[in-house]
Amino acid sequence: MSITITNINARDIRFPTSATLDGSDAVNIDPDYSATYVILETDSPQRLRGYGLAFTNGRGNEVCVAAVQALKHHVLGRTLESLTENFGAFWNEIASDSQVRWLGPEKGVIHLATAALVNAVWDLYAKTAGKPLWKLLVDMTAEQIVACIPFRHITDALTPADATEILKRNEATKAAREQQILSSGYPAYTTSAGWLGYSDEKVRALVRAGLAQGWTHFKMKVGRDLDDDVRRARLIREEIGPARKLMMDANQVWDVDQAIDWMKELAAFDPHWIEEPTSPDDVLGHAKIARAIAPIGVATGEHCQNRVVFKQLLQANAISFCQIDSCRLGGVNEVLAVFVHMRVEWDSANTFSISRFSITSRSALHLRTESSSTWIICTNISSFRW
Amino acid sequence: MSITITNINARDIRFPTSATLDGSDAVNIDPDYSATYVILETDSPQRLRGYGLAFTNGRGNEVCVAAVQALKHHVLGRTLESLTENFGAFWNEIASDSQVRWLGPEKGVIHLATAALVNAVWDLYAKTAGKPLWKLLVDMTAEQIVACIPFRHITDALTPADATEILKRNEATKAAREQQILSSGYPAYTTSAGWLGYSDEKVRALVRAGLAQGWTHFKMKVGRDLDDDVRRARLIREEIGPARKLMMDANQVWDVDQAIDWMKELAAFDPHWIEEPTSPDDVLGHAKIARAIAPIGVATGEHCQNRVVFKQLLQANAISFCQIDSCRLGGVNEVLAVFVHMRVEWDSANTFSISRFSITSRSALHLRTESSSTWIICTNISSFRW
Repeated sequence: MSITITNINARDIRFPTSATLDGSDAVNIDPDYSATYVILETDSPQRLRGYGLAFTNGRGNEVCVAAVQALKHHVLGRTLESLTENFGAFWNEIASDSQVRWLGPEKGVIHLATAALVNAVWDLYAKTAGKPLWKLLVDMTAEQIVACIPFRHITDALTPADATEILKRNEATKAAREQQILSSGYPAYTTSAGWLGYSDEKVRALVRAGLAQGWTHFKMKVGRDLDDDVRRARLIREEIGPARKLMMDANQVWDVDQAIDWMKELAAFDPHWIEEPTSPDDVLGHAKIARAIAPIGVATGEHCQNRVVFKQLLQANAISFCQIDSCRLGGVNEVLAVFVHMRVEWDSANTFSISRFSITSRSALHLRTESSSTWIICTNISSFRW
Repeated sequence: MSITITNINARDIRFPTSATLDGSDAVNIDPDYSATYVILETDSPQRLRGYGLAFTNGRGNEVCVAAVQALKHHVLGRTLESLTENFGAFWNEIASDSQVRWLGPEKGVIHLATAALVNAVWDLYAKTAGKPLWKLLVDMTAEQIVACIPFRHITDALTPADATEILKRNEATKAAREQQILSSGYPAYTTSAGWLGYSDEKVRALVRAGLAQGWTHFKMKVGRDLDDDVRRARLIREEIGPARKLMMDANQVWDVDQAIDWMKELAAFDPHWIEEPTSPDDVLGHAKIARAIAPIGVATGEHCQNRVVFKQLLQANAISFCQIDSCRLGGVNEVLAVFVHMRVEWDSANTFSISRFSITSRSALHLRTESSSTWIICTNISSFRW
């Protein structure tokens, strides 16, 4: 039975995290973790609702709420089926709104709003199917997945035919990969200990607590002061020992050559990756950094605006770790585009991905079921390793 | 005497241009040319005001107005002198607002709002100096100009020392170049005849009117239908003859390989450039197109989000024509960064630039005094040619 979206509520939700400097780093010095929270109401007898959000940093969240209002006519009053039966076409419709598109295009505030709306439709879609979203995606055929993907502006790297072929090739092992994820879970790291605003004592205590909880991968923030970073990296490396992994995150604070110079100093602490070493818009800059600091990997994506930038990062061998944010990109559809393209460019080993669907996922664990599902769809999990 | 900005008014102004399809193209099918119009009020005895705008396409203009409200605390209540005495630092402050930045960063809605506010400050600055903006810029020393430029994330291509050296090297000929612009004006083209929604009869009549007015360069929209484009290109080429220039503009509608295929068909009509052949975010794609269709030049920039993307377009030899929009970039400061970098990468011949400061400038003449002034500052005008 078809259900209709009868109302769209966009809420401005904020948490005063700046009070304790949780989430603080070299660029985001006083974040108030916030969300533009979208609720789709329906006429379903079970009162099903669809939820989606865009993560923001506090001030300006109201601008994102206004963008949801400017785009919601693409969803309001329509049946769920009319949106999902050709999900890729619906995605193009909302991302290419003939007047609102000018404000991006496909980037920034309107793309965050697109993500919140699109992911709310996905949530509703999964609920009507009686499955979690990851399972809805995993159970799709290759053709169904390809119909969800926006291919515009990426067909020089990935065509619908390419995507179908990759997905079909991996179908034989999909059930086994699903079982493996269900039984052994998905690798993850903790950032809880490494926020830049914390004292050395607090960092040490939190690293020890993380070790006691069984964490093996720890991420620290860097980039405000080199001496400070060296001291904190030494502290964390002492605590976690040589075998566990230490990742670093500069949150875009450096220029290209500065990133290279700084990482040569921090290489002594055996970082697994440097995340966001410079502007998220700088494909050529990331490629230059990657060449200069290998074998330290370059990671980015949290602020990468859309599939066109990810396409280039992969084409230019600019990153070793791909950190997709499902509410920075325009929702699940665009995430699928990047995942499948990643599978074309890379052996599935040595890749990593982030999907953020819930504000509560940020502090300790970036990974959510959605990345697991796309992983199961697109890759051979047995070759996944840290 | 110092003056203080006592109030900031952000107006939502719209024109119903979609009624006649003025401005229509392959992507923007029903534009309502609009603006977020910022007015800075002051306590000056002469009641001086500063005006700045962001251009938008209609729906969603209110989102841009909301973004101005979210950023205006960086300007409101401050003296003009406190903003302009270290203009580059002020620019960084507003572009790096520790919470609002997340919504871009430095792109989309919040960058449009930054442009409107920053350009309003420039307007007020020029008025207090009793000069038009172009003259204010031209009369600055090399050091003063460099102090206005945001160098963050571009120093791998352009350092303050590089910029100072270039500007100083060209100072000797600056007065002569200013006189040349004042006496002979600045080259320009017309788009009035080539909007995609016009009938062949209307196109022919408008081309003839343009010829009668003395225009030598005509731009047409392409990309909706190849047969249609071939017919219209033939019509315009017949009217303007072989010597005058015909430019084409696809407004981002093509994928990379499609742009190459399509332009091979349209090459018969000797296009001077193809503008926006694909996504404005695709540096590598533009470079591939440029290599494939030479000697037809690739032009882009109207939707290029910031100096980091322009840096890469220049580094990758992806464009031959650089079309800056001073209210897509974050205002005059960022335009100066791109202009000076362009002077590093290119001989000043065969370049072209757009600055949009006024909504009325769009239909017939993209060029405004601001581009003239930066041209005078940065280049040797005698080598400028079509």
